[in-house]
Amino acid sequence: MINQESWLLPEGIDELMPTEAVQLEKLHRLLVDRMQSWGYQLVVPPLVEYLDSLLTGTAKTLDLQTFKLIDQLSGRLLGIRADMTPQVARIAAHRLRSDEAILRLCYIGSVLHTLPDGQTNSRNPIQLGAEIYGHAGAESDMESMQLMIELLRISGLQGPLLLDIGHVGIYRGLADAAGLTAQQEEALFTALQRKALPEIEALLKEFNLAQADQQMLLALSELNGDADILDKATEVLALAPESVQSALRSLRELSVLLSDRLPEMAVNFDLAELRGYHYHTGVVFAAYQPGSSQAVALGGRYDDIGEDFGHAQPATGFTLDLKKLVSCFPAATASPEKIGVVWCNEPEQQHAVDALREAGKVVVYQLSGAETACNQQLIKIENRWQVVETG
Amino acid sequence: MINQESWLLPEGIDELMPTEAVQLEKLHRLLVDRMQSWGYQLVVPPLVEYLDSLLTGTAKTLDLQTFKLIDQLSGRLLGIRADMTPQVARIAAHRLRSDEAILRLCYIGSVLHTLPDGQTNSRNPIQLGAEIYGHAGAESDMESMQLMIELLRISGLQGPLLLDIGHVGIYRGLADAAGLTAQQEEALFTALQRKALPEIEALLKEFNLAQADQQMLLALSELNGDADILDKATEVLALAPESVQSALRSLRELSVLLSDRLPEMAVNFDLAELRGYHYHTGVVFAAYQPGSSQAVALGGRYDDIGEDFGHAQPATGFTLDLKKLVSCFPAATASPEKIGVVWCNEPEQQHAVDALREAGKVVVYQLSGAETACNQQLIKIENRWQVVETG
Repeated sequence: MINQESWLLPEGIDELMPTEAVQLEKLHRLLVDRMQSWGYQLVVPPLVEYLDSLLTGTAKTLDLQTFKLIDQLSGRLLGIRADMTPQVARIAAHRLRSDEAILRLCYIGSVLHTLPDGQTNSRNPIQLGAEIYGHAGAESDMESMQLMIELLRISGLQGPLLLDIGHVGIYRGLADAAGLTAQQEEALFTALQRKALPEIEALLKEFNLAQADQQMLLALSELNGDADILDKATEVLALAPESVQSALRSLRELSVLLSDRLPEMAVNFDLAELRGYHYHTGVVFAAYQPGSSQAVALGGRYDDIGEDFGHAQPATGFTLDLKKLVSCFPAATASPEKIGVVWCNEPEQQHAVDALREAGKVVVYQLSGAETACNQQLIKIENRWQVVETG
Repeated sequence: MINQESWLLPEGIDELMPTEAVQLEKLHRLLVDRMQSWGYQLVVPPLVEYLDSLLTGTAKTLDLQTFKLIDQLSGRLLGIRADMTPQVARIAAHRLRSDEAILRLCYIGSVLHTLPDGQTNSRNPIQLGAEIYGHAGAESDMESMQLMIELLRISGLQGPLLLDIGHVGIYRGLADAAGLTAQQEEALFTALQRKALPEIEALLKEFNLAQADQQMLLALSELNGDADILDKATEVLALAPESVQSALRSLRELSVLLSDRLPEMAVNFDLAELRGYHYHTGVVFAAYQPGSSQAVALGGRYDDIGEDFGHAQPATGFTLDLKKLVSCFPAATASPEKIGVVWCNEPEQQHAVDALREAGKVVVYQLSGAETACNQQLIKIENRWQVVETG
């Protein structure tokens, strides 16, 4: 029975045909080499793990995005990874545990989401990431951002990039100081993410907070711009608790490092940027192409993640979707030229074929029957095997 | 709460730490490059598809090995690929459909099995494969075997290899001619796979077949050895139907091609070799390291697979597990040397770092605080940035 639709893929699940696949392979190699040249060691975590391990601790927000399976061997629930970061955190905390040294790890692999991303409609990104474990200062956040930008640059991404930076400690500190309940904190968080000012105002009024707390929380959604905004924030948030002051100091420190190390970069500080709020613990950052609301790479600090694996340590890093990056490129030009050859039992022919392949050429054995012609041919002329144009 | 065991992986699920991951990455590149240099085009099929598509037609034996998921978007069953061959057959039949030309495709990716492999205990191999669509003769089987052996050779697999070759058409033809019921065919197939002679004899007696059919089926388990066995088979199976004679002619043709094209190769013909019987339609082959009962690569012909995608075409190819191949190697020597550098705001330093990285060196920015020392250091001496040994 011919199933007319057996070739259909599920919504949000895509695959790469040769032209894109070759670009993906090139990009994969380029980016892995670059991460390794910065001292990041490659690891290959598994596609599935016990659900407990994948959703441990701070990664619980991944629950909805994670496909569940029953393990026939253990009867336990498995999850298909929706994000490799918690896997690599597990590896850093357990398998490569180091109590003193800084550990740099990188990874690349398919992840799967139960629901499509709102913007790309994709459920099967190829995630690439790099993480630093064991260093708590602004320097490691800076290194993460610098490597992220370098990877995007060498990928050949056209046009300028915008680096958007926030710090989840600011809202968290203000919410704590104002005595928001968990429910209130969540409601305000949601409104802040959408920068829905009337809604924020209404919520703050409803919460019945002290005047100062209310003003500081309200100010967040407007504290957004270049490095000067940090000065303004220092004034506006002068009455905020020490954790907020400390977060502001981190951002200022980062701002200095940024102007040294990425002087050409357009940077936007956004104190209401709370992406990964339930997961991150410090600086968060994302790279955008101007005019797009969709980040091409994003990252941040998540110091607590190793705790559930028995080894809490500071951590910062970023991830990007390699498929999205491939899709940013114009389609590659024509496929590489093929040299055809009809196999014959002569060692010299084999040597000629091997040498051409070693030199990066594509040599195809032409099979009797249906094989289509190549526009170049390896043939024997005057006792030498030579490539000739055959049009 | 610290979950003491949250770092445990499910049985049969493993992951690669840096040393192995680097070897895997090297092997990946080496083998993909080689397949491309033979004219095989890379494709990247998705991790999951509708179960119907994954198990379509001849791949139904994969059912037990395939993890099932419910798609929240469609309510339909999805499967996690347990084998990429049917996916690539779908691509060949539908997305890259070509009614005349021969199509060569290659692929590499993680697959997942519900139950561990009996020999390796693995449930998450990394499958690499290469397939030829659109050619029906012995030449394409030969090309598949030659490429398979070449990939194993360049992988650096130690020691001699044995190529084991069968043809599922022989048993299938004899079983048909003898009038075995599907149940009888299955029972005898199982006994033949185990080469359990007493059991085969008992079954044949029980089936009450014609004397000639009985003798030919019984002879199968002993028709196994070098190319001479094909002559013996011609005698012993003289009364077999044309489909069996045709299969024997294919094997003889292949045997001639093999002695030309892989003259050094140890080849074993085994007419009771029925691996993939429910899936393959012609020649089947596998490469072994002597003394091991576990194939390092295997393949064969499966001419009917495109039918369910609306485009039946001949096909042959092979697959191997890259993780298994990596595990055949001795552990790599020490990790590459790292050059440490303390970041400073000097363009010359950045140029020196970029140049070293471009040249394949690993240069690590040393972060203040916990960073461990490198045994080489990039420092400024007499106004030049130089790498010095620091012991």
